[in-house]
Amino acid sequence: MQIIRKKSEMKDLRGIWAREGRVVGFVPTMGALHKGHITLVERSVAECDRTVVSIFVNPLQFGPKEDFGKYPRREKADCEMCEKAGADVVFIPTVEEMYPRGSGTVVEPHPALVSGMCGAKRPGHFRGVLTVVAKLFNIVQPNVAYFGQKDYQQCCVIEQMVLDLDFPVKLVFVPTVREPDGLAMSSRNEYLSKEERKKSVCLYKALKEAERMIVNEKEKEVSKIVERMKEIVQEAGGRIDYIEIVEPKSLRKVESIEESVVIGIAVFIGSTRLIDNIIVCPNRGEIFCDAL
Amino acid sequence: MQIIRKKSEMKDLRGIWAREGRVVGFVPTMGALHKGHITLVERSVAECDRTVVSIFVNPLQFGPKEDFGKYPRREKADCEMCEKAGADVVFIPTVEEMYPRGSGTVVEPHPALVSGMCGAKRPGHFRGVLTVVAKLFNIVQPNVAYFGQKDYQQCCVIEQMVLDLDFPVKLVFVPTVREPDGLAMSSRNEYLSKEERKKSVCLYKALKEAERMIVNEKEKEVSKIVERMKEIVQEAGGRIDYIEIVEPKSLRKVESIEESVVIGIAVFIGSTRLIDNIIVCPNRGEIFCDAL
Repeated sequence: MQIIRKKSEMKDLRGIWAREGRVVGFVPTMGALHKGHITLVERSVAECDRTVVSIFVNPLQFGPKEDFGKYPRREKADCEMCEKAGADVVFIPTVEEMYPRGSGTVVEPHPALVSGMCGAKRPGHFRGVLTVVAKLFNIVQPNVAYFGQKDYQQCCVIEQMVLDLDFPVKLVFVPTVREPDGLAMSSRNEYLSKEERKKSVCLYKALKEAERMIVNEKEKEVSKIVERMKEIVQEAGGRIDYIEIVEPKSLRKVESIEESVVIGIAVFIGSTRLIDNIIVCPNRGEIFCDAL
Repeated sequence: MQIIRKKSEMKDLRGIWAREGRVVGFVPTMGALHKGHITLVERSVAECDRTVVSIFVNPLQFGPKEDFGKYPRREKADCEMCEKAGADVVFIPTVEEMYPRGSGTVVEPHPALVSGMCGAKRPGHFRGVLTVVAKLFNIVQPNVAYFGQKDYQQCCVIEQMVLDLDFPVKLVFVPTVREPDGLAMSSRNEYLSKEERKKSVCLYKALKEAERMIVNEKEKEVSKIVERMKEIVQEAGGRIDYIEIVEPKSLRKVESIEESVVIGIAVFIGSTRLIDNIIVCPNRGEIFCDAL
């Protein structure tokens, strides 16, 4: 497995692969890899001729008061995990390599997709995400790119970018990988104290309670479901950032649940902000992004 | 020569060329082709294995009161000119093909590059330009793309996008082609009545007078030069939209001319807005974009 730090070197290698007719899979990450990421890498390795994993903590997608500085960085362990999963290249550029002085062109997300959820709570976040993903797509030029459902809104915003800007990339979204108690895998889980770790299961608990209400109680009223979810989070000592129930593609808020919906939740456990989501079909219960 | 109207078909053909290892040159246009465009096509044909010309009047780069509706369209003559110049493909998508209902992701130019000149006078224009150029780059996936110096600010904004978003495309900027009296070739020259056509030479006259003042009179003061240019335009009956003297790369306004500058001008002749520019080196006189 090769470690590449320069964009030019990555592009050169991609050129060789193009002439060889290789199908290239790509897993963009911010590092601090966990089983969620590795599932994506393994999927790419299984489906593509070559797999590139990028590790880049993207300053452009962090707000001024967010955790860019303390986001976990552990290149060596990450590379070992990628190698074990069968990746061919780990691309690890510096901030200066990705954003040289004077850069400033950006990709703006579709406004309708970022008016709610993390888009509303983290202004500029998805601009940062799209800008770095567009850059990485142009550097790695993947045939297929893999993203995790945990960042559901991110998946939608990127899917819309690929459509709107005609990127020649196929997107694959992969269901969220969870801890045994249901907590969604996230690099930010590392911020949690032992006490907080216990509380953090409230996100999944609230989501599954919503599913139960929708499927078993045939509850259609969003306000009632959100109210019950709030109780669960607050009883656990979490501070709600948002709970939203939206249409799976448009991310428009729904008031009454008639078809499949995405239930998104963001909660502060102490100072750590965690997000999670599930897709619920009123007839079938939880379904996954690959079934949409 | 092939005429392609579907993005998917263009991408498929590009895939074949990739496997064949072809170097692909690209000339994006809005059609109504003139010698300026054909110079770009001929340059691409000479330098690349395959040449694609796109013809697309991009609604996103027109303001609500601008000339999108009346912009000249003459596909047949354009295709004949492209074929004669040696193009392999003319790509002519419809507006619906390029902007299906619900699209909305856009590329925002570097703010510093659009605070003046056409950027200031045509809000949103360069967002439209970059969004369509990003799309066309992703559809055609050229190795080299050709643009005319007449749209100098456009060249700068696109060059910055390619840098900032890491598009794997080499850009070539080609000096403005002029009519015998100096008028820059432009599809919009067709709007001019015979009377207006005579007046329209005032843009070039003003630019060359500025050059004369800088080179022969060693005039450094921008305000004096601009004043003299205004007189020339107004004497001819033109209405000035802007006259700006800027640094060639940053497009920052200069007050005193010490090094090479770009002199940009936009003038309404009747209801037709024309633009032009020259690059002037105080020691050498006019120089061209390919000498920068």
